[in-house]
Amino acid sequence: MRIAVDAMGGDHAPKAAVLGAVLAAKEKQVASILVGKSEVLNQELSQLEDYPRDLITIKEAREVVEMCDQPAVAVRKKRDSSIVVANTLVKDGEAAAVISAGSTGAAMTASLFVLGRIRGIARPAIAIPLPTPNGVTVLLDAGANAENDPRDLLQFGIMGSIYAKAVLGIAAPKIGLLSNGEEETKGNKLVLETHQLFKESNLDFIGNAEGIDLPMGRCDVVVCDGFTGNVILKFAEGMASAIFQMMKEEIMGSAVAKMGALLIKPSLQRLKNRFDYSEYGGAPLLGVNGVSMISHGRSDAKAFKNAIIAAANAAKQDMIGKIRTAVEELNQEEDNA
Amino acid sequence: MRIAVDAMGGDHAPKAAVLGAVLAAKEKQVASILVGKSEVLNQELSQLEDYPRDLITIKEAREVVEMCDQPAVAVRKKRDSSIVVANTLVKDGEAAAVISAGSTGAAMTASLFVLGRIRGIARPAIAIPLPTPNGVTVLLDAGANAENDPRDLLQFGIMGSIYAKAVLGIAAPKIGLLSNGEEETKGNKLVLETHQLFKESNLDFIGNAEGIDLPMGRCDVVVCDGFTGNVILKFAEGMASAIFQMMKEEIMGSAVAKMGALLIKPSLQRLKNRFDYSEYGGAPLLGVNGVSMISHGRSDAKAFKNAIIAAANAAKQDMIGKIRTAVEELNQEEDNA
Repeated sequence: MRIAVDAMGGDHAPKAAVLGAVLAAKEKQVASILVGKSEVLNQELSQLEDYPRDLITIKEAREVVEMCDQPAVAVRKKRDSSIVVANTLVKDGEAAAVISAGSTGAAMTASLFVLGRIRGIARPAIAIPLPTPNGVTVLLDAGANAENDPRDLLQFGIMGSIYAKAVLGIAAPKIGLLSNGEEETKGNKLVLETHQLFKESNLDFIGNAEGIDLPMGRCDVVVCDGFTGNVILKFAEGMASAIFQMMKEEIMGSAVAKMGALLIKPSLQRLKNRFDYSEYGGAPLLGVNGVSMISHGRSDAKAFKNAIIAAANAAKQDMIGKIRTAVEELNQEEDNA
Repeated sequence: MRIAVDAMGGDHAPKAAVLGAVLAAKEKQVASILVGKSEVLNQELSQLEDYPRDLITIKEAREVVEMCDQPAVAVRKKRDSSIVVANTLVKDGEAAAVISAGSTGAAMTASLFVLGRIRGIARPAIAIPLPTPNGVTVLLDAGANAENDPRDLLQFGIMGSIYAKAVLGIAAPKIGLLSNGEEETKGNKLVLETHQLFKESNLDFIGNAEGIDLPMGRCDVVVCDGFTGNVILKFAEGMASAIFQMMKEEIMGSAVAKMGALLIKPSLQRLKNRFDYSEYGGAPLLGVNGVSMISHGRSDAKAFKNAIIAAANAAKQDMIGKIRTAVEELNQEEDNA
């Protein structure tokens, strides 16, 4: 099994992608195919003293989708771009999963365009693991869509549950529906309708979840429309930055506190790491016909490594097959109803 | 000028309400009317050695709206409840503003029911000041509504701007529209339509704001529908708690860090204070015919004090008159268009 890595996407590509693939090979014996300009990638590899050569291969792709490119246009026109070629490897069965830290729009579009949707899935969704005191809460959709209907949200719940089980190892994921109040009567029109669908489903649905339940980890998977999820994801990122910045300001204002800060530095670093997206190895685009991991644009080598390992897990656990089966069952139930 | 304080509402009522009113009187010479059971309130006051007696009066109200009460039912039936009587004092011109830390639903309903809406305002909104490294960003609507239309959001922008000027002292508030991307083409249907209304308005509209812009303070006022705002408000509260809890765990795991923590304790406390809702003195319910401040259920004496001072400022600055004028102008423009 090999993982296709778009080695040209992301702020720190290609170096971070190459190093990440090497780390995944060394630490977990996961094999990667680095997709991009071979002379650049060989140059990066040649700088490494030693790496597991049998686990790292290169697939030539002459073009690159840039951040400024219009995703839909770029994916259609740049057929020889690293992101399109990497997805094609999955489609052709040469790779078990694809990872990209390039433009989220281009990564989504390429997977949708090349891999297609799983039969019966109306809208794919991005699932993001958010840190909590006890682990993570998976939030989806974190921004693949701007608008959703109740059936989309039910499918997000099904897919999120499968991802939490298969990749995050949560045995019986509890699902919450994001709302403006715990009570069943709370919510906008979308949430009120979706609540009923969840109640009738065979998911472990705990009811409405409030904003506070996300960081506190009251459930394992929280479902919302892509607009709300995207706002929250970016808010969480901004709030973590703001708190650490404000903490620094407060500490730097006092000589005694500066001394104290030296002593708690390792603890603070561990805390920061828990809010560091690189720890969580990217966010799967659930609903496309293959494992597709979208990594943060700022991904470093560790982030690529973790994304590669997570993608390999998803493939080993046959996450796509499980989603396919669950959606077929859902459609049969709907036909019978 | 006197501020009506629902002295029976909130987790720490009546003590916190009474002490808050006394602090506001001592520190800023703001006069309050404590509304509630007079024997209970007199008992609280009698325990104080000294307080500015001319600035603290009591208004009898025999009933209390409980947290378990249905807001709409309770406000209609409990006419002699502290929250209804406090709002009636504003309606009758005996108080310049009302403050309650009781059930948010009851506080909103009482103000809507007793004070009514400002002519031309379709939907009142709760405006929440969120802490940022440079001050605050006002988010509205933070939960008065579950669903809104573009015209509601435009009115929120107008009211939020007036509140930011009059009460928070921001000379020329910059307004952002919360969306899932900066570009004008990003957003759900509601946001796409609202964007155009804002562009045509005479507000200082900076375009779409993303989730990250809220905690980082890129604009002074951020407008969104009440569902999204409520989710974010509760998420922010949960995330601040989660980060402080995780920090404690990391520090307690190391003896050296524990020593360091003692040294940075005052800095951390200042940081925590910046995320403490009691610092910001409650959230105005904008759009009702009178100054109505809704305080956090956990309000302590300081929170009540700050809410009373903020309410007095809003009254002194004629916030309601300014909203009334702005809405009349908006309606005239719409008639002319």
